[in-house]
Amino acid sequence: MSAITTFTGGETGRWRIVRHEVVTGEPLAPAGRLDVAVERTGRGSLDAGWVLRGVPSYERYVNRRERAELEAASPPLGRPEATSAALIPITKSPAWWDLPQDERREVFEEGSHHIATGLRYLPAIARRLHHGRDLGEPFDFLTWFEFSPPDAAAFEELVALLRETHEWTYVVREVDIRLVRDPA
Amino acid sequence: MSAITTFTGGETGRWRIVRHEVVTGEPLAPAGRLDVAVERTGRGSLDAGWVLRGVPSYERYVNRRERAELEAASPPLGRPEATSAALIPITKSPAWWDLPQDERREVFEEGSHHIATGLRYLPAIARRLHHGRDLGEPFDFLTWFEFSPPDAAAFEELVALLRETHEWTYVVREVDIRLVRDPA
Repeated sequence: MSAITTFTGGETGRWRIVRHEVVTGEPLAPAGRLDVAVERTGRGSLDAGWVLRGVPSYERYVNRRERAELEAASPPLGRPEATSAALIPITKSPAWWDLPQDERREVFEEGSHHIATGLRYLPAIARRLHHGRDLGEPFDFLTWFEFSPPDAAAFEELVALLRETHEWTYVVREVDIRLVRDPA
Repeated sequence: MSAITTFTGGETGRWRIVRHEVVTGEPLAPAGRLDVAVERTGRGSLDAGWVLRGVPSYERYVNRRERAELEAASPPLGRPEATSAALIPITKSPAWWDLPQDERREVFEEGSHHIATGLRYLPAIARRLHHGRDLGEPFDFLTWFEFSPPDAAAFEELVALLRETHEWTYVVREVDIRLVRDPA
């Protein structure tokens, strides 16, 4: 079983929120800091502006070859120099979820090159995907990115490329939260 | 978002448990009746022997053609004559969940004919799959089947065929619970 990761936006936590941009749909409540916890009990602290939950889970689209390429190039989370982060919660439309598996894969990779594009920004941009849909969460996905400040331009390029894809026409809600880590 | 379905084994509920067989792994606690509820608040009644939860969710392996065949042949749940049911909770091994998507699909259908086999027993055997893994549940899947008593032999054939497949070598826990519905 996978551990549920809880992202709490409020007044505490090691990550300072430096930008909160609504890309599509409703914004989140204002918050100054972000706390990230695995298997937190309860629903976050009382002063929380919002609490989002997701599970890393198993892979839904990646094939054996792509998995090997991703594993070879992916850095771990928590690199000392990776003091910049982004949390991008996304919800896709009912039309997306109603597609059969083969057509979702087709849009995802053959049509939108989601995996191939991400690979080009490795090992600079570390990434972890969390699934929230089956938990009844407001967001289907919470993607967490970590990078060092000199790679910020590369990260902007990556998110801009993904937002231009056919896959992104299925996105009905997207919030883009940028963060800076406090020194330990 | 999908609604969480809660299966509570205890002393109440419209379904009477007539058999509880452990196929692989640990048994469930004894229970005489089963209650099935969608979006129940709380964790089941106090006299519950066990509470299992799952989400119908979206399809993980079915392609467009298979979806069309399944939809054309699948009966609804709740047919008046379908007074027999089975609840089969299953957990698969870490080796299964570590397979990439294309290899899980390959084992599931090309190697084990899971969809094609199920299709042969439609419309007699109604079926609904619930996913529990991302909820942190003890079982990855809860499959619920409904059929009329004259189709009981066909149902035994279906489960026997599936248990002989390559896919089933990844099953590390399976419980088979048979039920009879009370008259309305």
